[in-house]
Amino acid sequence: MKAPDLGIRIGLHEPGKRNSIADLGVKVGHTTLIEGDDVRTGVTVVLPPVKNPFRERLFASTFVMNGFSKPIGFVQVDELGYIETPVALTNTLSVYTVASAVVRHMIDLNPDLKSVSPVVMECNDSYLNNIRKMAVKEDHYFEAVKNASLDFEEGAVGAGTGMSAFEFKGGIGSSSRVVEIGGEEYKVASLVLANFGRREDLTIAGVPVGELLKDYPGRGTSGKGSISMVVATDAPLTARQLKRLAKRAVVGLARTGGYAYHGSGDIVLAFSTAQTVPIGKEPELVSFLPDNALSYLFRATAEATEEAIINALLQAKTVEGNGHVRYALPVERVLETLKKNRAS
Amino acid sequence: MKAPDLGIRIGLHEPGKRNSIADLGVKVGHTTLIEGDDVRTGVTVVLPPVKNPFRERLFASTFVMNGFSKPIGFVQVDELGYIETPVALTNTLSVYTVASAVVRHMIDLNPDLKSVSPVVMECNDSYLNNIRKMAVKEDHYFEAVKNASLDFEEGAVGAGTGMSAFEFKGGIGSSSRVVEIGGEEYKVASLVLANFGRREDLTIAGVPVGELLKDYPGRGTSGKGSISMVVATDAPLTARQLKRLAKRAVVGLARTGGYAYHGSGDIVLAFSTAQTVPIGKEPELVSFLPDNALSYLFRATAEATEEAIINALLQAKTVEGNGHVRYALPVERVLETLKKNRAS
Amino acid sequence: MKAPDLGIRIGLHEPGKRNSIADLGVKVGHTTLIEGDDVRTGVTVVLPPVKNPFRERLFASTFVMNGFSKPIGFVQVDELGYIETPVALTNTLSVYTVASAVVRHMIDLNPDLKSVSPVVMECNDSYLNNIRKMAVKEDHYFEAVKNASLDFEEGAVGAGTGMSAFEFKGGIGSSSRVVEIGGEEYKVASLVLANFGRREDLTIAGVPVGELLKDYPGRGTSGKGSISMVVATDAPLTARQLKRLAKRAVVGLARTGGYAYHGSGDIVLAFSTAQTVPIGKEPELVSFLPDNALSYLFRATAEATEEAIINALLQAKTVEGNGHVRYALPVERVLETLKKNRAS
Amino acid sequence: MKAPDLGIRIGLHEPGKRNSIADLGVKVGHTTLIEGDDVRTGVTVVLPPVKNPFRERLFASTFVMNGFSKPIGFVQVDELGYIETPVALTNTLSVYTVASAVVRHMIDLNPDLKSVSPVVMECNDSYLNNIRKMAVKEDHYFEAVKNASLDFEEGAVGAGTGMSAFEFKGGIGSSSRVVEIGGEEYKVASLVLANFGRREDLTIAGVPVGELLKDYPGRGTSGKGSISMVVATDAPLTARQLKRLAKRAVVGLARTGGYAYHGSGDIVLAFSTAQTVPIGKEPELVSFLPDNALSYLFRATAEATEEAIINALLQAKTVEGNGHVRYALPVERVLETLKKNRAS
Repeated sequence: MKAPDLGIRIGLHEPGKRNSIADLGVKVGHTTLIEGDDVRTGVTVVLPPVKNPFRERLFASTFVMNGFSKPIGFVQVDELGYIETPVALTNTLSVYTVASAVVRHMIDLNPDLKSVSPVVMECNDSYLNNIRKMAVKEDHYFEAVKNASLDFEEGAVGAGTGMSAFEFKGGIGSSSRVVEIGGEEYKVASLVLANFGRREDLTIAGVPVGELLKDYPGRGTSGKGSISMVVATDAPLTARQLKRLAKRAVVGLARTGGYAYHGSGDIVLAFSTAQTVPIGKEPELVSFLPDNALSYLFRATAEATEEAIINALLQAKTVEGNGHVRYALPVERVLETLKKNRAS
Repeated sequence: MKAPDLGIRIGLHEPGKRNSIADLGVKVGHTTLIEGDDVRTGVTVVLPPVKNPFRERLFASTFVMNGFSKPIGFVQVDELGYIETPVALTNTLSVYTVASAVVRHMIDLNPDLKSVSPVVMECNDSYLNNIRKMAVKEDHYFEAVKNASLDFEEGAVGAGTGMSAFEFKGGIGSSSRVVEIGGEEYKVASLVLANFGRREDLTIAGVPVGELLKDYPGRGTSGKGSISMVVATDAPLTARQLKRLAKRAVVGLARTGGYAYHGSGDIVLAFSTAQTVPIGKEPELVSFLPDNALSYLFRATAEATEEAIINALLQAKTVEGNGHVRYALPVERVLETLKKNRAS
Repeated sequence: MKAPDLGIRIGLHEPGKRNSIADLGVKVGHTTLIEGDDVRTGVTVVLPPVKNPFRERLFASTFVMNGFSKPIGFVQVDELGYIETPVALTNTLSVYTVASAVVRHMIDLNPDLKSVSPVVMECNDSYLNNIRKMAVKEDHYFEAVKNASLDFEEGAVGAGTGMSAFEFKGGIGSSSRVVEIGGEEYKVASLVLANFGRREDLTIAGVPVGELLKDYPGRGTSGKGSISMVVATDAPLTARQLKRLAKRAVVGLARTGGYAYHGSGDIVLAFSTAQTVPIGKEPELVSFLPDNALSYLFRATAEATEEAIINALLQAKTVEGNGHVRYALPVERVLETLKKNRAS
Repeated sequence: MKAPDLGIRIGLHEPGKRNSIADLGVKVGHTTLIEGDDVRTGVTVVLPPVKNPFRERLFASTFVMNGFSKPIGFVQVDELGYIETPVALTNTLSVYTVASAVVRHMIDLNPDLKSVSPVVMECNDSYLNNIRKMAVKEDHYFEAVKNASLDFEEGAVGAGTGMSAFEFKGGIGSSSRVVEIGGEEYKVASLVLANFGRREDLTIAGVPVGELLKDYPGRGTSGKGSISMVVATDAPLTARQLKRLAKRAVVGLARTGGYAYHGSGDIVLAFSTAQTVPIGKEPELVSFLPDNALSYLFRATAEATEEAIINALLQAKTVEGNGHVRYALPVERVLETLKKNRAS
């Protein structure tokens, strides 16, 4: 169950119908790899709601809060202001394999393609996963694409299989918010791959839950954290505006206790589903929201990202692997703690 | 009284002796301008602990979270990695006058000076201050320099005189933290000019105090917010490392309820007091902390900045001006609310 | 006379009718300050072709090649993607005074204004000018505004009065180019304040003229160089696209022999006159050129900037001041040298 | 033969002994792939002069002039200021395969490695190479490493096999410069993968050779250009200083006729071989050149990069493939043209 289903309210704006990035028509697919004692990893793909992402490019931008990270494609997104492939997530040493798979995927779809810039993001799952085995293969990406759906699992699945957060089981989480601007309703959603934080930092809805769970078993860390965040909106925004949006994901991160420690790669990709990027050589009319209208979208981005991280924790099941155990967050105990600490 | 004096604990690290930027040997001086019905503004100067800042340059960097802001000097700080003047704070339309004063200050101190890059930051106090009058004069900067002391006032003083935060009275706040790295003790401190936020966003130590004070009188805003943050540390850091530190100030900001709304300029200057920048043409040995050592400094920066903002609110007195009243935060009521919401 | 009038061809594209930034409808005004033995400085203003620049904001962006520079307003231009004032140029220590004047100018024009972000750029004229006197006053800005015209002087005038380039007399130069894209004609122009370079670096139309003029009298430098470049176009471009355009000004700079030495501030502001920036809270249709169409505009920006620098040199008269003489480029000798070195 | 061997002088500083990046002790290795009618591609590796680049990290930085490019690893280099692997070059769609190979290389060398950030850069060789075949395999990287030597070939080899420049055969080129700073000699070198430019833009030593060769046969382009540049120096520089150095590579590029057209990825990686990056948690003394000393290094970077591009052209042999021919630059004719246009 996600935060609102458990009575945990994060922020002032209401979630969308699915309370996930699917509220933007974005499909998500996973390949979960559990092999032997030491392979606990996977691939997650985020499919923009277009038929051929290489032809139907979407405005996009990035923000790097802490660049101890190996994202693929950020340089080109920032120059040209769009994405032209699905967005994939996996473990640190497998981003290159998955990027090759994205290239092949786009080659297959587009007979004339001679250049393409995949976007792949990562976290390091080496606590639960023998990352040196490089177990992810190109087929795992294609499998994840096939599995993609508006109804997707969160927690210890896909790229999230081996991830840890606050020394609990982490992984994939998502949440959305709806805002009204100038009489029009817009949605913004966040999908995160959460793999960061020490126990004592965990904060849920403002309550320092982590400090109170300091002695809960299962502590330990590989020292390799990170969080990759994907923000999507149906508000018509330019790349410059999407960079502003991307930065607000970090506000949500901060409120869960994240502070982007040295070894953590904390990065954001934001895109808009509102319209495709014009191609050609003549001026085109494009629809955009003026910057004056953005404040509520900013707040909603912070809220959706904060909740997405908490949702990853709430939904991830205990996983053993690579000689370690990572326990699921003890949800009942957390709820009690929240109740004691919040006099509505 | 500051947060710890009131039993409000923010973060895991301990404050320094003065719990302010003075713990780094940095002196702060104010000129408070209250004239007639409508002038409520001022100047605050932050003096690095050196005799001649133009000769004894300190490593420095900046971070712009939201650039709806008019900082002076950021381009050069980012290129060269140092500050070469005191750092001043004032209102939005007066940064240029104050920057001219800093130039004159450095001209007076340095007979050979032919180029200098002042650093001045601002927030917009037009709710309580008739900002169009441009009441700040160059002399006000020199007066603030003369007033500078390790014991300095916070709240509605100097540049903070006319500022608002969360629709309460805002202004100047400061806080510090001590961390141990590799057996060595380092300090990091934050001084903020807080002038941002809607009532409902205010969060103190994780508790959504603002929502609970929604009906407290005095609401209203000019729509012009901002926060200027100055971070100082005695850890020996390069400009690149100081940029990393500067980014963590935003983590503290986020935890008070800030999300860098469109109209807000949210910017950070960070500098190190550990050593001066080599001048000359031959290689010099400089002492630096490896990046591996930075995580606790990052967390301490977030904590000091979060508390500095709350300290500004806790210490600012009610101010009337320009046809508006901005009430002081009702501290007693806040403390009750915190007590009810936190089962230690 | 400008380069083409002397038979010097720079680049492949044709200049516009006036071969200056006035081809975009932009007016330029100067105040030239020559007082006593040692004041040789001034102010130049660049007026966008709108009535009230604070209401009729133009899309804009910046690029910093070398940030040993004190530009005013770049942080906000980069965040919001527009300029909202005229653009002014002056000496290094006077940018703050001129920025205050721009604020007052906008206050006078706009009764409701409570925040505004002036853009002022600078070079250091301390070789010919006693810069420590801070001789520029706010009135000099207003005088320059009054003087503004489509027919404006170049060379040792306005902000260019005391500037040096390649150890010759430098100053203000401008040039434009016309390109055809998708059957439509667009213009791009550059206006520079040129104040950089050692004699031996000077290159005109590819010929190392400077090396051949090494022994021409008048060498010597204050070690304080810089070039401030303003690029304008009537192509409909977003802020992101204008940043791409701004970067190409540096290509032109490089071809004159500039390499952005340490002490030089080499910065660019680019804006589009095609349309004003929407204000409000509802989506608006805005016209933009797709990125595919930009290459010729990029080349034209490089060419216009290269020629603008050469035009500054060709038009600047010898100036004495502050105990130094800066000779005009010996145009006849340059033309001979070019002839010998170019077998058309 | 390289430019100086043909009497072409570029810039004011002298080349080093080998006039290549090998002057820094950097070894370069190629795998050249020529298969059937349509595979004309390869891999080039640049090996820093250390035994284990993952343990002996070198200070580094990047600059993106035009980000229509798919570099691997730039985000982390910019955050942490070092490289921790060899630097590889290949075609656009093969960067991911080569990056995976670099990961495996570092895994093999370092039994404890669980995270590593390879640096791979690319250009698009689809004019001469059937890039959709993705012919480069991981073994090709290892072969290039084995081939690495201080004596390496330039031109149409390794990653340069299928590249074009100015509609002539392009590829790998390198050049170095020696500068004296504060009585000490430092070297800076550039190695480029040149694959950009229209015929009419080609400029050699300031002479518009391309315009004069407009009618030379073999014109045509895939519209996919780019240049990847690697700058190395033995001057002790920080990451911030290396970013400044990296920017000057673009000055050299501009002087060959490059202007970073829309479809071109123009990017730079710069590193220093002077010392390794400290690891640990305690302050360390590191040696650095003050910024005042950098100007000649900047000029030397521009010169070495300009010559490296010309050297690529001068050394690349004619290549046929994928239905196209790309002719070698007609060196004799170029030399005649230069002679006619330069009255020493």
